[in-house]
Amino acid sequence: MANSKYEYVKKFEMEDKLPDCNWIVVRIDGHKFHRFSDDHDFDKPNDENALNLMNSCAVSMVEQFSDIVFAYGVSDEYSFIWKETSQFYDRRASKILSLSVSSFTSMYVIKWKDFFPHKDLKDPPCFDGRIVLYPRVKIVRDYLSWRQVDCHINNQYNTCFWMLVKSGKSKKDAQELLKGTLAKDKNELLFLQFGINYDKLPDIFKKGSCVYKDTVEETVKPDDGGNPVKRQRRRVIVGHFNIIEDRFWNEHPNILKED
Amino acid sequence: MANSKYEYVKKFEMEDKLPDCNWIVVRIDGHKFHRFSDDHDFDKPNDENALNLMNSCAVSMVEQFSDIVFAYGVSDEYSFIWKETSQFYDRRASKILSLSVSSFTSMYVIKWKDFFPHKDLKDPPCFDGRIVLYPRVKIVRDYLSWRQVDCHINNQYNTCFWMLVKSGKSKKDAQELLKGTLAKDKNELLFLQFGINYDKLPDIFKKGSCVYKDTVEETVKPDDGGNPVKRQRRRVIVGHFNIIEDRFWNEHPNILKED
Amino acid sequence: MANSKYEYVKKFEMEDKLPDCNWIVVRIDGHKFHRFSDDHDFDKPNDENALNLMNSCAVSMVEQFSDIVFAYGVSDEYSFIWKETSQFYDRRASKILSLSVSSFTSMYVIKWKDFFPHKDLKDPPCFDGRIVLYPRVKIVRDYLSWRQVDCHINNQYNTCFWMLVKSGKSKKDAQELLKGTLAKDKNELLFLQFGINYDKLPDIFKKGSCVYKDTVEETVKPDDGGNPVKRQRRRVIVGHFNIIEDRFWNEHPNILKED
Amino acid sequence: MANSKYEYVKKFEMEDKLPDCNWIVVRIDGHKFHRFSDDHDFDKPNDENALNLMNSCAVSMVEQFSDIVFAYGVSDEYSFIWKETSQFYDRRASKILSLSVSSFTSMYVIKWKDFFPHKDLKDPPCFDGRIVLYPRVKIVRDYLSWRQVDCHINNQYNTCFWMLVKSGKSKKDAQELLKGTLAKDKNELLFLQFGINYDKLPDIFKKGSCVYKDTVEETVKPDDGGNPVKRQRRRVIVGHFNIIEDRFWNEHPNILKED
Repeated sequence: MANSKYEYVKKFEMEDKLPDCNWIVVRIDGHKFHRFSDDHDFDKPNDENALNLMNSCAVSMVEQFSDIVFAYGVSDEYSFIWKETSQFYDRRASKILSLSVSSFTSMYVIKWKDFFPHKDLKDPPCFDGRIVLYPRVKIVRDYLSWRQVDCHINNQYNTCFWMLVKSGKSKKDAQELLKGTLAKDKNELLFLQFGINYDKLPDIFKKGSCVYKDTVEETVKPDDGGNPVKRQRRRVIVGHFNIIEDRFWNEHPNILKED
Repeated sequence: MANSKYEYVKKFEMEDKLPDCNWIVVRIDGHKFHRFSDDHDFDKPNDENALNLMNSCAVSMVEQFSDIVFAYGVSDEYSFIWKETSQFYDRRASKILSLSVSSFTSMYVIKWKDFFPHKDLKDPPCFDGRIVLYPRVKIVRDYLSWRQVDCHINNQYNTCFWMLVKSGKSKKDAQELLKGTLAKDKNELLFLQFGINYDKLPDIFKKGSCVYKDTVEETVKPDDGGNPVKRQRRRVIVGHFNIIEDRFWNEHPNILKED
Repeated sequence: MANSKYEYVKKFEMEDKLPDCNWIVVRIDGHKFHRFSDDHDFDKPNDENALNLMNSCAVSMVEQFSDIVFAYGVSDEYSFIWKETSQFYDRRASKILSLSVSSFTSMYVIKWKDFFPHKDLKDPPCFDGRIVLYPRVKIVRDYLSWRQVDCHINNQYNTCFWMLVKSGKSKKDAQELLKGTLAKDKNELLFLQFGINYDKLPDIFKKGSCVYKDTVEETVKPDDGGNPVKRQRRRVIVGHFNIIEDRFWNEHPNILKED
Repeated sequence: MANSKYEYVKKFEMEDKLPDCNWIVVRIDGHKFHRFSDDHDFDKPNDENALNLMNSCAVSMVEQFSDIVFAYGVSDEYSFIWKETSQFYDRRASKILSLSVSSFTSMYVIKWKDFFPHKDLKDPPCFDGRIVLYPRVKIVRDYLSWRQVDCHINNQYNTCFWMLVKSGKSKKDAQELLKGTLAKDKNELLFLQFGINYDKLPDIFKKGSCVYKDTVEETVKPDDGGNPVKRQRRRVIVGHFNIIEDRFWNEHPNILKED
């Protein structure tokens, strides 16, 4: 039985090749994670295990897809920057998007028990994703700055909100109290009311997480004379850096380099 | 700290709304499943547990996304037909694609142990996906026919191939033997050499699997007089029908109905 | 000198094939024709020569592009319906759009002197264009109804407006007077104040213009016995029909026929 | 009569905004100009009047659309480079494409008699067009180099071909003779057989035409003391430069400047 009679339906498949010389950002987002985090009793405002699980999935992504040059995560969201010259699946948008989202999801479920050994998954975690193209390094940097500023704004708000709620305020009252407050006001509230110095909170909460490959020098073993032997190795780094300022990028000039 | 300075990067997000009055087909495909099926010792040519796992995930999809009117699966591939009037996420392609793929993947990992209680997952299973639009019911039917003919052609070939290999032939010799054979030749080979009547093989292998919602009549309990009480209920059906011929569609006129 | 070094720039050309089984509507619109009509002293509210020039260009389009099955024009706008099966330039959007707009423009300038023998072109007339896809005949009909209703609403308003202005009202006063009036009110105003029966105005103003190919029977010559000899011929028709109601379409079932 | 019942058809209009930070190249091409040039007896291999007409239309384009920063023409083709920051019609592709093509066509017909006072237009000239996006200045330069190399290759071939034909060879024999020849061979053929030094041919044939706005210094009038008074003025320049090498671009650094 030949299949030619029906094969015309393939003509409806549309080309979706992404234009060359554009950095490809895949941003994935937890789907209905507000409810998912309630169902699984995540700590508020930040659940360190949940963040570490996200980071661990991101590390796997960076290891698996060699064209991802940088990833940045905050809360239930992760952005993956694919290098502008990537020819992964001929730059077909649906391949890049679906494989990114599927891979991340698969690893999230598989690694769950490593980070929550005493909690069973009650619902299947699910992520949506989108692709955005950036034609210049400068705009990729601005994109990352946008996400990190967002991380900061949200974290400061959420820290205040949950401290107020934990101290007995209703969620509605907490919202009302914070309406219209500036960054300075929130820091004061935290310090005066709860003795919290916002600047001393963990960087993973305040700055989000960066994942990228770097060349590191390792001490392998002492040689015959007892001197340490070193070697260079590519490995995946997780850190919580300020990626708005130039310093990080000056120290890692190869991550975002135009062709 | 306002975020307005960087928010311009959002302008690079492109609209990807799918045009109205088109049936949306999301086809997902196991990524590198040739290797995945080797790593997990799937039966050849068909692993019934693996197919049932796929079907179980498809059932969850049809339950979860009310706009999916029909799903058809074969091997490591599943097609989901979203109704032409769906306004799910305003018909944004990236939302529909990523949520479909992520949901399916998540359920595949979670349900794995139900279907393979004695096998651990060695690698994260991963699916890619694509969207195709069909503006007419007739073409959706031709699309489904195309997939089912493909199922038949592949299954017939694979059944011969693996019988030959299991009988001692090398894979290369098996390929050579089958080169250029017609359907008739393959059926004869199966019958004469291995005593297999192809037509008697399970429908799940020959026809693939259909998943859809149907109204069924259930007997709930006997009433006071001992007579059975019946009620109508919507439930998800899994079946292995001929979806090339009209019969199935005539019996289920509501599945693919133009607005 | 080989050109291969630079040919990579062709990779940036994006595919823009329109999906099959969709009627292709190309709508072109006079660019800054408010000013153009002032500069060339067009009659208000309707300039019959200008409309006939538009229609003449549309006739040339229908003659030149055999895949255009119907055209509808009103004021400085014309919609061309390309048949759903058209394979003109492999359905590439940019080819279809640019050739339509360029052809129409070229003919508008060339034919200008036939319709305005005593007026020179003061500025180059210019048209913009867009493509819209409709996957069903029913929606194409609704599209055409939308344009014809628009024609009617605008013409009724403009007829009132210009009668008021010609009778001495300022443009601002005329606008004020018409604000919020219903169709009935406008008809009364025309009749009571200016003795105009709106229904008796020329159809070309009230209904716009339809252009399409039809088979007509022509009397060629008398035969030897003096009897008229007839033959069938395809020719382009210009008419001013009601295309909202079914009648026209019932009488011309071949114009919009699904494959 | 309200129009709301049919207005849903507008939902089928698709957004076609071009992404920011990309140079927009609109390339227009004479449609069936092989025949058009025969019909109007254009000189072969190059008709200077026809080239000057093209250039004159390009000048009008550069004057009319302030976001066009550079135009390059060869034969019946012209490329218009719109600046990367252009917000013309919100960067909608169909507007930019259709207005470019329509404007150029309109001017071509209007200006025809200025360049061919003794020839009537026999057919309506028509141009197709396409849009290509380039995210970097370097690639825009490579695009222009690609077109200029093409100009050179074609012109050298055509000059040989038409000299052979004019000298009595059939078109087929001329083609055969030129098959596989290198640039060097063609130059020798021209020199030895026809006494033509290819390098001495007019630049407009060998290099094509560049059109752009420049600031020029003009002598307006002598002042009272008889000294020339100068002023700066923006005007459109037509020239035939080498745009492959850096020199032109170094001398005109403002034409292609990244934001």
